[in-house]
Amino acid sequence: MSSKDLKPEENLKVSSIGEKKLIKRLLSRSLSLQPNSPFFDEFSFKSLSDDAALLDMGDKYLVVTSDLLLESAHFPSDMSPYEKGVKVVTVNVSDLAAMGAQPLGFILSWGLPADLPLTDFDGIMEGVLQSCQEYGMGLIGGDTNQSDELILSGTCLGTVDKEHVLLKEGARPNDVVAVTGPLGVAAAGLEFLLSPPTLKEDLIKHLKPSTQKLIIDHALRPHARLKEGIMLANTGRVTSATDITDGLASEVGELVEASPTNVGITLFEDSIPIIPEVEEAAAALDQDPLDLALYYGEDFELLLTVPPEDFKYLKEQMELHEVGVVTSSGSMEIIDKAGKTKILESKGYQHLG
Amino acid sequence: MSSKDLKPEENLKVSSIGEKKLIKRLLSRSLSLQPNSPFFDEFSFKSLSDDAALLDMGDKYLVVTSDLLLESAHFPSDMSPYEKGVKVVTVNVSDLAAMGAQPLGFILSWGLPADLPLTDFDGIMEGVLQSCQEYGMGLIGGDTNQSDELILSGTCLGTVDKEHVLLKEGARPNDVVAVTGPLGVAAAGLEFLLSPPTLKEDLIKHLKPSTQKLIIDHALRPHARLKEGIMLANTGRVTSATDITDGLASEVGELVEASPTNVGITLFEDSIPIIPEVEEAAAALDQDPLDLALYYGEDFELLLTVPPEDFKYLKEQMELHEVGVVTSSGSMEIIDKAGKTKILESKGYQHLG
Repeated sequence: MSSKDLKPEENLKVSSIGEKKLIKRLLSRSLSLQPNSPFFDEFSFKSLSDDAALLDMGDKYLVVTSDLLLESAHFPSDMSPYEKGVKVVTVNVSDLAAMGAQPLGFILSWGLPADLPLTDFDGIMEGVLQSCQEYGMGLIGGDTNQSDELILSGTCLGTVDKEHVLLKEGARPNDVVAVTGPLGVAAAGLEFLLSPPTLKEDLIKHLKPSTQKLIIDHALRPHARLKEGIMLANTGRVTSATDITDGLASEVGELVEASPTNVGITLFEDSIPIIPEVEEAAAALDQDPLDLALYYGEDFELLLTVPPEDFKYLKEQMELHEVGVVTSSGSMEIIDKAGKTKILESKGYQHLG
Repeated sequence: MSSKDLKPEENLKVSSIGEKKLIKRLLSRSLSLQPNSPFFDEFSFKSLSDDAALLDMGDKYLVVTSDLLLESAHFPSDMSPYEKGVKVVTVNVSDLAAMGAQPLGFILSWGLPADLPLTDFDGIMEGVLQSCQEYGMGLIGGDTNQSDELILSGTCLGTVDKEHVLLKEGARPNDVVAVTGPLGVAAAGLEFLLSPPTLKEDLIKHLKPSTQKLIIDHALRPHARLKEGIMLANTGRVTSATDITDGLASEVGELVEASPTNVGITLFEDSIPIIPEVEEAAAALDQDPLDLALYYGEDFELLLTVPPEDFKYLKEQMELHEVGVVTSSGSMEIIDKAGKTKILESKGYQHLG
């Protein structure tokens, strides 16, 4: 870049760039600066923009992912310390699940406000450890620091057979696009929890208690689809996959963008799995349930593509919902309930900007 | 723990516990909750309280360390974006150096204030990438989040031959205690940078320019002793090692505590490598240079123990300063310049409490 090229950016703030472009900026500069080391070649990485980094370890990949959670951005005020601990493990394990990797160990860096009660620390710790145990891995390290707000920065390590790894790249025209479970449930729960006090009182009165419980559980105690990710990888039939952290539309965009060929994806509004509880909550919240499914993440379901001839087989193995088809159009579209084709915007929940 | 045991802690804040005890609390609870997984056994970890976590990969260990830096706690206001990027890599690589590991890759999670200029982001990125290149590894992943203050959370991966790994555990009576370079230099620089404006003006006038440059360089552009750590590991003669991030006294305490036997360490005040620039700066700052070396970290030199018969051989290979001896007393002592033996407190710079 010449200094002239840089000039227009001089007054830009990171918020005007957005999370995904910042990461791309970083990774493209990184590619031009790879170290000249025989050791690095041996363990060279396969993918820089996937859910997790892959390092070459012979017939396996070491899979490494890192996600940082902040009190102000990621934890609703109703979340207990235990649930915060569960969440930092879940978001990281979900990235491993998306690649079909088996977890190996978890490392947690803490930023702790000085006045945080020790009982809160213990609660977070318990959530982290129980969650690590649930996903079959140990907590293997970490450090603590004093900070103004609570920060939980997790790193998760795993391994996957090279021949089985699931990547964002690989969708082929005519593949079925599928998800592993209902969408918009955590979104409904978060909208409920974050609603203004008067609306919230109203919702508590009018929503079915079972609906309230379901959507709040999904929002506060998310679960990573680890078992499903590993099963899907082992079938050897999935052509591409990712986890849905920023909403279906955004993740569909990721699969399209990762493809070296000119694939597109068309979703069928009619097929998107929206459960009655989400319909009920959305109505009470005066929101479109489809928006909750498309543009709001946190469900941690997996999104995948699979050749049509294999989809039936996979559907016999686990819960799967067909939501669309891979095309050769190069664009993202959605066919609404009236049969009309519309452009699908790749926007989603971005943690910055 | 019974509920009765927990009661006295109910009103405790994390700040009254301190960083190292929090980590120990976490790790001891973690040990009682190890997952029942054959996979976890296969890659079982060797050490939970060392500089980095070790995972069993056949004839090598995978070494993983994680360190989180916060604008408010770790970056003096004089630090440039580039230097912040260098620092987050350095603190992590230093943990690998302490174990003799060769870096493999670096992952960075960012917390970014929305109004951070893009040029600052680019500066940090450049520091991270140049530093990764210097240590022979690639940036392999990361994520970004919006936060109130700048947060850089790094994770560094490396490998080391099992037979060569350096641990905190292993010091034996009569071993020489040594460090790889002068101590207190970064401390003097940080004290200089953090001094009140009027004192700082005075220091700028009266300290030699070469002194100012040296101490500020150490404070703002620290370097990890990676080459030295790998060389030391490869000799097979070092019995224990760590990096000096919290001051010599604190790290000596770590080696003593890690030992399963009742070893102690006695330092010789006369031998602690304090360079004239630190003496000069300490005098101007009205500080004891010994305090800067003992109780203030950030030099990133390595501390090691080695049998006396091997020390001479090692000293021919690289800069090494003998600073003390391992004893069987179980306690930490320092012999002052007058020959008087005093108790050495294990206190050091703690990032919390």
